[in-house]
Amino acid sequence: MLIECVPNFSEGRDTATIDAIVAAIASAGVTVVDHSSDPDHHRMVVTFLGAPEAVAEAAFAGAREAVTRIDLTRHEGVHPRFGAVDVIPLVPLGETPMAACVDLAHALGERLGDELGLPVYFYEAAARRPERRDLARVRAGGFDALCQQPLVEERAPDAGPAAAHPTAGAVAVGARGPLIAYNVHLDTDDVEIARRIAARIRERGGGPPGVKALGLRLASRRHAQVSVNITEPDRVSLDHVFERVRQEAARHGVAVTGSELVGALRLEDLLAVCRRTLGLRGLDRSQVLDLWEAPAARTKRNAQRTTQE
Amino acid sequence: MLIECVPNFSEGRDTATIDAIVAAIASAGVTVVDHSSDPDHHRMVVTFLGAPEAVAEAAFAGAREAVTRIDLTRHEGVHPRFGAVDVIPLVPLGETPMAACVDLAHALGERLGDELGLPVYFYEAAARRPERRDLARVRAGGFDALCQQPLVEERAPDAGPAAAHPTAGAVAVGARGPLIAYNVHLDTDDVEIARRIAARIRERGGGPPGVKALGLRLASRRHAQVSVNITEPDRVSLDHVFERVRQEAARHGVAVTGSELVGALRLEDLLAVCRRTLGLRGLDRSQVLDLWEAPAARTKRNAQRTTQE
Repeated sequence: MLIECVPNFSEGRDTATIDAIVAAIASAGVTVVDHSSDPDHHRMVVTFLGAPEAVAEAAFAGAREAVTRIDLTRHEGVHPRFGAVDVIPLVPLGETPMAACVDLAHALGERLGDELGLPVYFYEAAARRPERRDLARVRAGGFDALCQQPLVEERAPDAGPAAAHPTAGAVAVGARGPLIAYNVHLDTDDVEIARRIAARIRERGGGPPGVKALGLRLASRRHAQVSVNITEPDRVSLDHVFERVRQEAARHGVAVTGSELVGALRLEDLLAVCRRTLGLRGLDRSQVLDLWEAPAARTKRNAQRTTQE
Repeated sequence: MLIECVPNFSEGRDTATIDAIVAAIASAGVTVVDHSSDPDHHRMVVTFLGAPEAVAEAAFAGAREAVTRIDLTRHEGVHPRFGAVDVIPLVPLGETPMAACVDLAHALGERLGDELGLPVYFYEAAARRPERRDLARVRAGGFDALCQQPLVEERAPDAGPAAAHPTAGAVAVGARGPLIAYNVHLDTDDVEIARRIAARIRERGGGPPGVKALGLRLASRRHAQVSVNITEPDRVSLDHVFERVRQEAARHGVAVTGSELVGALRLEDLLAVCRRTLGLRGLDRSQVLDLWEAPAARTKRNAQRTTQE
């Protein structure tokens, strides 16, 4: 059984902390496929894979490092967050059933509550209350709101203490299907335009199914960005989102300068782009030679890119 | 050591022959990744992978079947050809050196000459004369020219008898790097337009490096096609060729209706399309989850598509 884990941590600037979190994860016997950080989001994302026990151990090790090192009372960043280790999604790969990720999320959450003193909320497939399926709702108000009230009644955590950790806040632990974290860069630093585009391309604003979007300003790069989560990648492909953003940006007289992927995606997602942009309707995964070669070239990457959920 | 072999046979209509050739190849202990045939090209392409000895055995078994079953004296098709088994390219995969494919091509060629009575020409990296590196030159004149003269002097084969096989012609055996066989469909059945587009997009006509192109009419599908070989896929990506064909077709007031891939490609070729069409400059192969999963889903396909070299 192979599980992907994509924890997001609220640190995108301090290299020592970033490296320590990645090292803690890597030392637990998993394969780190990708990690990236962004100083404006002030956030980092690590993507790793492994057997269930190793994944839980690695996620815990990364979380412990984050709780020790990150102080949210002094944290400012453009991305929503309520925890030092903000979200820990678990994703089944291959034949792994979703139930295995749900069980693992619950066990990991109990341990994060007991040993690190974090209030834990289970989301998406791991949610124990229907209203907690939606991560945005779980995280609403962020760290500040979390600290202003006892965590009781509708705010009561699913595991851990009934009060925010004073410096590390809370953590959302989930089980979910594949998600593509995809950012499109605009040739403007006007964040209002990015927000208007985001409002129109997200599902709630009439956009494609499963698309969530935020407009953000990246001060260090002097441009605005539409930060997108594609939560139903079998229905909405990357080029679809890219083209929608391009069209909406054009209405504001703004060009799109490029895009970036945070974390990993499935081969199927690349095939979908090629099928659509080239009319290559018959393209099949079996035609990709690399799938037939023995060990995948397990190159690790270390890029500075922006963050995810 | 893993080698890819992509033999092209001059049969695209008779299902019994097509199936027999594929079965002969598959029974030799290789993995058949893809096969396709086209009634207008009157040609089929099989893509298979394996260890060197198995690949040579499979290629020989397919060739024997083709020589037994295909009679070129009664063959008509839109694709250039001079043999029942027309070309056998060998491609190194992974860490396999090109020299291994060259050696295998020579050994296979000797056997095809000795046991099947085929004149054999070695091309590309396996060429023993510099002017035979270019397959088009080796095959110039096709089956008809081959039969009209003794195969001596500049036509003398590199292996096998000095006369065309009466029904199976000759065979070109080569070693080469990756090649993408890619066809773009036009919304017209005017083959002249396809030919004019082909003339402008091929390298010899001022097009991108390593691009070879033919304009063909597919009577059974009632449209014309630009049939392209991309021989330097690290320099020219699929979307580049698609866009060039689209632009040239637009000059004739003709739309492009889609495209098709014949055989296989590398993951890198898909990544290149996504990098270019989405401005996804940082995209890296390590971000593709499927490379990390244990056994590739070894789905076999059986599509009717058009043919290759």
